[in-house]
Amino acid sequence: MRHLARGANVNHMVQYSPSLDDSFAALADPTRRGILERLGREDASISALAEAFAMTLTGMKKHVQILEDAGLVTTEKVGRVRTCRLGPRRLDEEALWMHAYREMVEARFDRLAAFLDGGGGA
Amino acid sequence: MRHLARGANVNHMVQYSPSLDDSFAALADPTRRGILERLGREDASISALAEAFAMTLTGMKKHVQILEDAGLVTTEKVGRVRTCRLGPRRLDEEALWMHAYREMVEARFDRLAAFLDGGGGA
Repeated sequence: MRHLARGANVNHMVQYSPSLDDSFAALADPTRRGILERLGREDASISALAEAFAMTLTGMKKHVQILEDAGLVTTEKVGRVRTCRLGPRRLDEEALWMHAYREMVEARFDRLAAFLDGGGGA
Repeated sequence: MRHLARGANVNHMVQYSPSLDDSFAALADPTRRGILERLGREDASISALAEAFAMTLTGMKKHVQILEDAGLVTTEKVGRVRTCRLGPRRLDEEALWMHAYREMVEARFDRLAAFLDGGGGA
């Protein structure tokens, strides 16, 4: 019963979290992870980011757009400079999903170990 | 100095972890997250998974292949049945990256709060 409830919980998180799709996809690129880390230290303009990652402005804009669509980055244009900072989403939901998943896997291996200890593997 | 060391640490994790690309991309789909949760509870054949997710065998095979390429699932064919189970990777590295990132962001906001408390925001 506890097992089912645990599973149902995780399923609930997945079914109603379309944003997890966007954020995990956004994280599936080393440059985009690098941008997040950089913005975690300080805000930066698109051109500063392009320079830091040895990339064209156009290429950097695309990466920033993907991060912005996922809610991980926000940008603000003042004059000619577009400044990027971390967005409203802080990967809380993603960390929660991962935590729940890892707990479930761990519990499963605990049950398996208990089964083997009980002589089931003899 | 501590700040730089922290950043360098996270960068190191990112630069030398091409597998993070594959695993985050694998997680960017609700069906694939669902498959992992299901396999976290019990091993299952491709056809059982296809049925559970109301999907064609071909469609399910593609999802399983992506999870397999990312090291999150392994499969074994015995007779006509291909059984899927959780793979060698347990999202440890992904959780570590997320943890380091969230810690860095938190530390940054702590520094900002300290700055504002010190009258910098007056």
